[in-house]
Amino acid sequence: MKVESIDHHEQTDVDMEGASGVRMRMLVGPQDGAPNFHMRHFEVEPGGHSPHHQHDYEHEILILKGHGVAKSEQGDRPFKAGDVIFVPANEKHQFQNGGDDPLEFICLIPAPENCAR
Amino acid sequence: MKVESIDHHEQTDVDMEGASGVRMRMLVGPQDGAPNFHMRHFEVEPGGHSPHHQHDYEHEILILKGHGVAKSEQGDRPFKAGDVIFVPANEKHQFQNGGDDPLEFICLIPAPENCAR
Repeated sequence: MKVESIDHHEQTDVDMEGASGVRMRMLVGPQDGAPNFHMRHFEVEPGGHSPHHQHDYEHEILILKGHGVAKSEQGDRPFKAGDVIFVPANEKHQFQNGGDDPLEFICLIPAPENCAR
Repeated sequence: MKVESIDHHEQTDVDMEGASGVRMRMLVGPQDGAPNFHMRHFEVEPGGHSPHHQHDYEHEILILKGHGVAKSEQGDRPFKAGDVIFVPANEKHQFQNGGDDPLEFICLIPAPENCAR
Protein backbone atom coordinates (compact mmCIF):
# COMPACT_ATOMS: atom_id res chain seq x y z
CA MET A 1 0.00 0.00 0.00
CA LYS A 2 1.22 3.46 -0.88
CA VAL A 3 0.32 6.43 1.38
CA GLU A 4 1.85 9.69 0.15
CA SER A 5 0.72 13.32 0.22
CA ILE A 6 -0.11 15.12 -3.03
CA ASP A 7 2.79 17.52 -2.40
CA HIS A 8 5.33 14.69 -2.36
CA HIS A 9 4.66 13.89 -6.01
CA GLU A 10 6.84 15.58 -8.62
CA GLN A 11 5.15 18.47 -10.42
CA THR A 12 5.98 19.10 -14.08
CA ASP A 13 4.91 21.70 -16.63
CA VAL A 14 2.34 20.55 -19.18
CA ASP A 15 3.65 21.66 -22.57
CA MET A 16 0.83 20.32 -24.74
CA GLU A 17 -0.29 22.60 -27.56
CA GLY A 18 -3.21 24.70 -26.33
CA ALA A 19 -2.32 24.40 -22.63
CA SER A 20 -1.28 27.53 -20.71
CA GLY A 21 -0.12 27.78 -17.11
CA VAL A 22 -0.81 24.12 -16.31
CA ARG A 23 1.30 21.83 -14.10
CA MET A 24 0.72 18.14 -13.46
CA ARG A 25 1.49 15.49 -10.86
CA MET A 26 0.97 11.77 -11.52
CA LEU A 27 -0.57 10.65 -8.20
CA VAL A 28 -1.30 7.02 -9.08
CA GLY A 29 0.10 5.72 -12.35
CA PRO A 30 2.51 3.38 -14.07
CA GLN A 31 5.11 3.96 -11.32
CA ASP A 32 2.71 2.33 -8.85
CA GLY A 33 1.75 -0.55 -11.13
CA ALA A 34 -1.81 0.81 -11.44
CA PRO A 35 -3.30 -1.48 -14.08
CA ASN A 36 -6.63 0.06 -15.08
CA PHE A 37 -6.76 3.84 -14.57
CA HIS A 38 -4.48 6.69 -13.50
CA MET A 39 -5.03 9.61 -11.10
CA ARG A 40 -3.40 12.90 -12.07
CA HIS A 41 -3.36 16.23 -10.18
CA PHE A 42 -3.51 19.49 -12.15
CA GLU A 43 -2.76 23.02 -10.99
CA VAL A 44 -3.79 25.86 -13.31
CA GLU A 45 -2.61 29.41 -12.64
CA PRO A 46 -5.03 32.36 -12.85
CA GLY A 47 -5.84 32.97 -16.52
CA GLY A 48 -4.51 29.54 -17.48
CA HIS A 49 -6.36 26.74 -19.26
CA SER A 50 -6.12 23.19 -20.52
CA PRO A 51 -6.23 22.45 -24.28
CA HIS A 52 -9.60 22.77 -26.03
CA HIS A 53 -9.63 19.28 -27.47
CA GLN A 54 -11.30 15.89 -27.61
CA HIS A 55 -10.10 12.28 -27.47
CA ASP A 56 -11.44 8.74 -27.40
CA TYR A 57 -11.40 8.29 -23.61
CA GLU A 58 -13.29 9.80 -20.70
CA HIS A 59 -12.28 12.08 -17.81
CA GLU A 60 -13.45 11.72 -14.22
CA ILE A 61 -12.64 14.94 -12.34
CA LEU A 62 -12.99 16.34 -8.83
CA ILE A 63 -12.32 20.06 -8.25
CA LEU A 64 -10.21 20.51 -5.11
CA LYS A 65 -9.55 24.27 -4.96
CA GLY A 66 -10.61 27.37 -6.88
CA HIS A 67 -13.23 27.85 -9.55
CA GLY A 68 -13.48 28.20 -13.30
CA VAL A 69 -15.38 27.43 -16.46
CA ALA A 70 -15.56 24.22 -18.47
CA LYS A 71 -16.16 24.68 -22.17
CA SER A 72 -18.47 21.82 -23.13
CA GLU A 73 -20.53 20.85 -26.16
CA GLN A 74 -23.55 22.15 -24.19
CA GLY A 75 -21.95 25.57 -23.63
CA ASP A 76 -19.88 27.05 -20.82
CA ARG A 77 -20.33 25.33 -17.46
CA PRO A 78 -19.09 27.09 -14.31
CA PHE A 79 -17.51 24.89 -11.64
CA LYS A 80 -16.09 25.29 -8.14
CA ALA A 81 -14.32 23.31 -5.43
CA GLY A 82 -16.36 20.23 -4.50
CA ASP A 83 -17.76 19.73 -8.00
CA VAL A 84 -17.57 16.44 -9.86
CA ILE A 85 -17.15 16.52 -13.64
CA PHE A 86 -17.59 13.61 -16.06
CA VAL A 87 -16.46 14.16 -19.66
CA PRO A 88 -17.56 11.26 -21.88
CA ALA A 89 -15.19 9.97 -24.55
CA ASN A 90 -15.09 12.09 -27.73
CA GLU A 91 -16.69 15.20 -26.18
CA LYS A 92 -14.70 18.39 -26.81
CA HIS A 93 -13.72 20.13 -23.56
CA GLN A 94 -11.50 22.75 -21.95
CA PHE A 95 -10.96 23.86 -18.34
CA GLN A 96 -10.23 27.51 -17.62
CA ASN A 97 -9.20 29.08 -14.31
CA GLY A 98 -11.65 31.93 -13.80
CA GLY A 99 -10.36 33.00 -10.39
CA ASP A 100 -7.49 34.92 -8.81
CA ASP A 101 -6.05 31.86 -7.09
CA PRO A 102 -4.66 28.61 -8.44
CA LEU A 103 -7.22 26.06 -9.65
CA GLU A 104 -6.53 22.51 -8.49
CA PHE A 105 -8.28 19.33 -9.55
CA ILE A 106 -7.71 15.65 -10.00
CA CYS A 107 -8.46 14.08 -13.38
CA LEU A 108 -8.54 10.33 -13.92
CA ILE A 109 -8.15 8.54 -17.24
CA PRO A 110 -8.14 4.89 -18.27
CA ALA A 111 -4.69 3.33 -18.56
CA PRO A 112 -3.68 3.42 -22.21
CA GLU A 113 -3.49 -0.35 -22.69
CA ASN A 114 -5.85 -2.21 -20.45
CA CYS A 115 -9.34 -0.76 -20.64
CA ALA A 116 -12.23 -0.57 -23.06
CA ARG A 117 -11.78 2.55 -25.17
CA MET B 1 -20.59 16.72 -19.72
CA LYS B 2 -21.81 16.39 -16.16
CA VAL B 3 -20.95 19.10 -13.59
CA GLU B 4 -22.48 18.39 -10.19
CA SER B 5 -21.38 19.03 -6.61
CA ILE B 6 -20.54 16.13 -4.32
CA ASP B 7 -23.45 17.11 -2.05
CA HIS B 8 -25.98 16.69 -4.86
CA HIS B 9 -25.29 12.95 -5.07
CA GLU B 10 -27.47 10.64 -3.00
CA GLN B 11 -25.79 9.32 0.13
CA THR B 12 -26.60 5.80 1.34
CA ASP B 13 -25.54 3.70 4.32
CA VAL B 14 -22.94 1.02 3.60
CA ASP B 15 -24.24 -2.16 5.23
CA MET B 16 -21.39 -4.49 4.25
CA GLU B 17 -20.29 -6.92 6.94
CA GLY B 18 -17.39 -5.36 8.83
CA ALA B 19 -18.30 -1.76 7.96
CA SER B 20 -19.34 0.63 10.72
CA GLY B 21 -20.53 4.22 10.42
CA VAL B 22 -19.83 4.45 6.68
CA ARG B 23 -21.93 6.24 4.06
CA MET B 24 -21.34 6.30 0.32
CA ARG B 25 -22.12 8.45 -2.71
CA MET B 26 -21.56 7.20 -6.29
CA LEU B 27 -20.04 10.31 -7.91
CA VAL B 28 -19.29 8.87 -11.35
CA GLY B 29 -20.66 5.44 -12.13
CA PRO B 30 -23.04 3.34 -14.17
CA GLN B 31 -25.67 6.12 -14.05
CA ASP B 32 -23.27 8.32 -16.04
CA GLY B 33 -22.26 5.63 -18.51
CA ALA B 34 -18.73 5.57 -17.10
CA PRO B 35 -17.21 2.60 -18.94
CA ASN B 36 -13.89 1.87 -17.24
CA PHE B 37 -13.79 2.98 -13.60
CA HIS B 38 -16.08 4.47 -10.97
CA MET B 39 -15.57 7.31 -8.46
CA ARG B 40 -17.21 6.86 -5.04
CA HIS B 41 -17.27 9.24 -2.07
CA PHE B 42 -17.13 7.83 1.47
CA GLU B 43 -17.90 9.52 4.76
CA VAL B 44 -16.87 7.69 7.94
CA GLU B 45 -18.08 8.89 11.32
CA PRO B 46 -15.66 9.18 14.28
CA GLY B 47 -14.85 5.65 15.47
CA GLY B 48 -16.15 4.15 12.22
CA HIS B 49 -14.29 1.97 9.75
CA SER B 50 -14.49 0.15 6.44
CA PRO B 51 -14.37 -3.68 6.31
CA HIS B 52 -11.00 -5.34 6.92
CA HIS B 53 -10.93 -7.32 3.70
CA GLN B 54 -9.26 -7.97 0.37
CA HIS B 55 -10.43 -8.40 -3.22
CA ASP B 56 -9.07 -8.89 -6.71
CA TYR B 57 -9.13 -5.22 -7.76
CA GLU B 58 -7.27 -2.09 -6.73
CA HIS B 59 -8.30 1.11 -4.92
CA GLU B 60 -7.14 4.61 -5.85
CA ILE B 61 -7.97 6.96 -2.96
CA LEU B 62 -7.65 10.65 -2.13
CA ILE B 63 -8.33 11.81 1.44
CA LEU B 64 -10.47 14.98 1.38
CA LYS B 65 -11.15 15.70 5.08
CA GLY B 66 -10.09 14.32 8.44
CA HIS B 67 -7.46 11.77 9.36
CA GLY B 68 -7.21 8.12 10.30
CA VAL B 69 -5.28 4.89 10.04
CA ALA B 70 -5.08 2.40 7.20
CA LYS B 71 -4.45 -1.20 8.23
CA SER B 72 -2.13 -2.58 5.57
CA GLU B 73 -0.06 -5.72 5.09
CA GLN B 74 2.94 -3.55 6.07
CA GLY B 75 1.33 -2.47 9.35
CA ASP B 76 -0.76 0.54 10.38
CA ARG B 77 -0.32 3.59 8.15
CA PRO B 78 -1.57 6.98 9.39
CA PHE B 79 -3.15 9.26 6.78
CA LYS B 80 -4.61 12.78 6.62
CA ALA B 81 -6.37 15.13 4.21
CA GLY B 82 -4.32 15.57 1.04
CA ASP B 83 -2.89 12.04 1.11
CA VAL B 84 -3.06 9.67 -1.85
CA ILE B 85 -3.47 5.94 -1.19
CA PHE B 86 -3.01 3.10 -3.66
CA VAL B 87 -4.12 -0.37 -2.55
CA PRO B 88 -2.99 -3.01 -5.05
CA ALA B 89 -5.33 -5.87 -5.93
CA ASN B 90 -5.45 -8.67 -3.34
CA GLU B 91 -3.87 -6.63 -0.51
CA LYS B 92 -5.87 -6.78 2.73
CA HIS B 93 -6.87 -3.31 3.94
CA GLN B 94 -9.11 -1.30 6.26
CA PHE B 95 -9.66 2.44 6.78
CA GLN B 96 -10.43 3.72 10.29
CA ASN B 97 -11.48 7.23 11.29
CA GLY B 98 -9.05 8.21 14.05
CA GLY B 99 -10.36 11.73 14.56
CA ASP B 100 -13.24 13.58 16.19
CA ASP B 101 -14.67 14.80 12.88
CA PRO B 102 -16.03 12.93 9.87
CA LEU B 103 -13.46 11.36 7.58
CA GLU B 104 -14.15 11.93 3.88
CA PHE B 105 -12.38 10.39 0.91
CA ILE B 106 -12.92 9.36 -2.66
CA CYS B 107 -12.14 5.78 -3.67
CA LEU B 108 -12.05 4.66 -7.29
CA ILE B 109 -12.40 1.10 -8.53
CA PRO B 110 -12.40 -0.50 -11.96
CA ALA B 111 -15.83 -1.05 -13.49
CA PRO B 112 -16.82 -4.65 -12.81
CA GLU B 113 -16.98 -5.74 -16.44
CA ASN B 114 -14.62 -3.79 -18.63
CA CYS B 115 -11.12 -3.77 -17.17
CA ALA B 116 -8.20 -6.10 -16.61
CA ARG B 117 -8.63 -7.67 -13.16
